Amino acid sequence: MADTLATILPFIDRSDARGGLSIIEEGAGLPFRVRRAYWVYGTSPGVSRGFHAHRQLQQICFCVAGSVRMELFDGRREESVQLKPGMGGLMLPPMLWHEMHDFSADCVLTVLADAEYDESDYIRDRDQFIRHVHSS
Amino acid sequence: MADTLATILPFIDRSDARGGLSIIEEGAGLPFRVRRAYWVYGTSPGVSRGFHAHRQLQQICFCVAGSVRMELFDGRREESVQLKPGMGGLMLPPMLWHEMHDFSADCVLTVLADAEYDESDYIRDRDQFIRHVHSS
Repeated sequence: MADTLATILPFIDRSDARGGLSIIEEGAGLPFRVRRAYWVYGTSPGVSRGFHAHRQLQQICFCVAGSVRMELFDGRREESVQLKPGMGGLMLPPMLWHEMHDFSADCVLTVLADAEYDESDYIRDRDQFIRHVHSS
Repeated sequence: MADTLATILPFIDRSDARGGLSIIEEGAGLPFRVRRAYWVYGTSPGVSRGFHAHRQLQQICFCVAGSVRMELFDGRREESVQLKPGMGGLMLPPMLWHEMHDFSADCVLTVLADAEYDESDYIRDRDQFIRHVHSS
């Protein structure tokens, strides 16, 4: 069992006097080819999102502005990690329940995924997720 | 010849009362598998970036916060386009000279590319770029 549920993939940092530049690419941190990208932004006050796990999908989350707190649950342990710019990308492997809380008003969360949207890949019921983990 | 140099790829918009959510994926706007992603942010006042074309690389640029003005030049025509959140992604095909100007202080520009970094793919001299266009 890994020491932490929160695997952070480091960026390549090419920031200089001009400003910030962060990179992730195949062979340097990016563990899959990206077939889907999305952005969560302008989140209303008090809103939380997520509340699901994926059966197969791999994702990487980058907070590129503001901050958000990600709660992770593998069916046994829970962890909370604050995502902020410059800290790298949080890996969301299959079968990891995740919830996003405490979005700052200016938060922009970018997510790269290895497959297109597929509703059948989602487990949206936490009890079902727990049963699934403990039966496998 | 296309009517415009600035091809904008539309997002899928899944925004609702919770906030903004924009998506691009294979089969719905994303024309290639992504092997490199990068972010330009915290750009110092007065700084411009880019000033090159790529021989082969395809890229899509999304301004996810703030704004930036992109100048495009195909060796014959010049165009300027202001990138802002919610307007979709600007396609940067091969052999399109591009410069980024007028970054707002809060600008975050996300770029998805179809290949890893390769210095030999860059044309960094504008006159060389023009000669290349007119000889091909």
